[in-house]
Amino acid sequence: MLTGPGSHADRVARVALTWLAEPGHRAVWTLVQQAGAPATLDRLLRGDIPSGALRAAVTARSAAGDARRMAEIALRRADRIGARLVVPADAEWPARVDALATLELDSGGRVNRDTRPPLCFWVRGEPPLGATLERSVAIVGARAATGYGVHVTSDLAYGLVERGWTVVSGGAFGIDAAAHHGALAGGGTTVAVLACGVDRPYPAGNSTMFTRIAERGLLISEWPPGAEPLRHRFLIRNRVIAAATAGTVVVEAAARSGATQTMSRVLALDRPAMVVPGPVTSAMSVGCHELLRSHPPARLVTSAADVLEEVGRIGEYLEPAPRGPERVRDRLDEESALILEAVPRRGAVTPEELAAEARLDLRTVLRRLSLLEAAGLVVRTGSGITLAPRGRPAD
Amino acid sequence: MLTGPGSHADRVARVALTWLAEPGHRAVWTLVQQAGAPATLDRLLRGDIPSGALRAAVTARSAAGDARRMAEIALRRADRIGARLVVPADAEWPARVDALATLELDSGGRVNRDTRPPLCFWVRGEPPLGATLERSVAIVGARAATGYGVHVTSDLAYGLVERGWTVVSGGAFGIDAAAHHGALAGGGTTVAVLACGVDRPYPAGNSTMFTRIAERGLLISEWPPGAEPLRHRFLIRNRVIAAATAGTVVVEAAARSGATQTMSRVLALDRPAMVVPGPVTSAMSVGCHELLRSHPPARLVTSAADVLEEVGRIGEYLEPAPRGPERVRDRLDEESALILEAVPRRGAVTPEELAAEARLDLRTVLRRLSLLEAAGLVVRTGSGITLAPRGRPAD
Repeated sequence: MLTGPGSHADRVARVALTWLAEPGHRAVWTLVQQAGAPATLDRLLRGDIPSGALRAAVTARSAAGDARRMAEIALRRADRIGARLVVPADAEWPARVDALATLELDSGGRVNRDTRPPLCFWVRGEPPLGATLERSVAIVGARAATGYGVHVTSDLAYGLVERGWTVVSGGAFGIDAAAHHGALAGGGTTVAVLACGVDRPYPAGNSTMFTRIAERGLLISEWPPGAEPLRHRFLIRNRVIAAATAGTVVVEAAARSGATQTMSRVLALDRPAMVVPGPVTSAMSVGCHELLRSHPPARLVTSAADVLEEVGRIGEYLEPAPRGPERVRDRLDEESALILEAVPRRGAVTPEELAAEARLDLRTVLRRLSLLEAAGLVVRTGSGITLAPRGRPAD
Repeated sequence: MLTGPGSHADRVARVALTWLAEPGHRAVWTLVQQAGAPATLDRLLRGDIPSGALRAAVTARSAAGDARRMAEIALRRADRIGARLVVPADAEWPARVDALATLELDSGGRVNRDTRPPLCFWVRGEPPLGATLERSVAIVGARAATGYGVHVTSDLAYGLVERGWTVVSGGAFGIDAAAHHGALAGGGTTVAVLACGVDRPYPAGNSTMFTRIAERGLLISEWPPGAEPLRHRFLIRNRVIAAATAGTVVVEAAARSGATQTMSRVLALDRPAMVVPGPVTSAMSVGCHELLRSHPPARLVTSAADVLEEVGRIGEYLEPAPRGPERVRDRLDEESALILEAVPRRGAVTPEELAAEARLDLRTVLRRLSLLEAAGLVVRTGSGITLAPRGRPAD
């Protein structure tokens, strides 16, 4: 039976692993990187688990059912509702989320430790996931939004889709819903990142909106069809909103809210962290102003034009900031730096050639290449690996 | 007849010079620094003037009347209305405005070139000028303020005087008036910096407020009693609001307004430049958001507590910022640096000793010492010149 990346065994194992431990689990993700998903699942199911907490979690889940069987059921259920599973080996995998591989947050707590990339996505909707998220901006904020927040959000979303960008948000009332409505009103593409199954998006009060999103954009989730929107899942989900997009805008947020938690991930990922100010007399803008005061990289934005100026700074679509590529290079681990150095200034090479040149094993090269690609430093073309235009040193 | 600093001749000359050329005139101020006010006035009146533009201005003004006589009349008029003239030799001179001596603004235009310190102030009100401005914050903004702006401004002013700070603003409707009203409501001291005579503060619609300010705070101006509030004088005046205070807050401002012009001076002076955000849908907040977007040192503030956190950063009343003194030192001209180096780590020296040690003439030493004192690097005590506590290098 084939067990390579993208095989049926790989898919089933990724779903099963997400069921055994919540998405983003640091130890599980590391094992998958080292041994692949099927071997990791085998290992977990036979109890060969270094961490006591993970062993306990796996034991508890396994008591509730057979992980592989649950995964097969989920896949069949997805098929019935017209949803699909996307894994890293698929062409439509949104490479940008792999930047979570190196995300480190200062404060402790499980939700700040377990921020590793997703193992898979459940997707409902036509457009290919990766291409849809490539030019995307997240708009997040308070559920208890004011009329001001709702107005500014729909204006912003409308302006972004008008310029050909995708809007990304959660599925909540308030700012999330206003973002999707604005994008839909503009005839654009919008993506709802859910913390539950794509077959039963939460909250039910937004179901008409979810139906329209599934018709015109995408409903996506790391949790299988039927999964409940448990409270902690929203916090786990937030890392995906931060990592899948070119930048994130917070419109209204109370102090220490979900939106400010999302922003901590955006800032840690060095992505444009944008904040819409509001009246200082409004409790719904306190979190926004706190972000701007306490995080100097967070930028005040007032319009879609401001937002595009900021996401342009990361150099993916507009002129790169002068020091942009150097800064990414400075943060590379040793192996990645060796591999990047082995890519010739002109022309393409194969991963095998890079492995020989950098004196690293092929598995390491392949793993690092994904990250280098996600960071926009190399590009995979038909003829092999080349330096990205902006990754090329000045001649 | 005595012509030294603070003498009657010095006072008359400073008033006459301000009448011959508008306050802040770069060439006039430099001549006064070099030769004193009376000698500079003599020189201007006999037509010995390097700049053609200045010569033309002096000729035109002289045709309208005798400068010395106008000055004597202004002094008598001030006496009658209970106003006084304050010159740099007076104990109540607000030393902080001398920082304008080294202010350089990027863009051209007369109003950006002629930003030198005032030659004198006309003052109406009891409290001593210098001590009143020592712990002061300017609050400026739009005349066409919204209800939101007025509310936030009076709250802010109230909070500042409650904590023992003086509020400084212009005399206009809108934000200026709200700042004074808030300060007066809090039983605090407030200072209106006018662009016309202190006997006829403009606009007349605020006359009840001006009367209350004169009773409880100060009305001050660089222009003599009777002077008209000419349009360009407001722009000249703005440099004083920026330089006389520990920091400036803009509450509401349209794009490219008087308040943003004041802020350019605050930023160039390296003083805390603070901005209250507002709804992005409000035209009256566009200038505020522009300031925050285009000037990273400008800081968003939402309350009096935020403001005091920012003015605390300049280290005059709270703990100094770690790099504060070094940054001021880095910007010293060569002569000032030599003099500062000649001040011993412990104990006091006389200006004569400093001149000998630094190998500079006494006049230069005295001139530079005023600036070093204004910058908070040295202190004049009964026994001579000493290093200011925060100017002292770590032992």
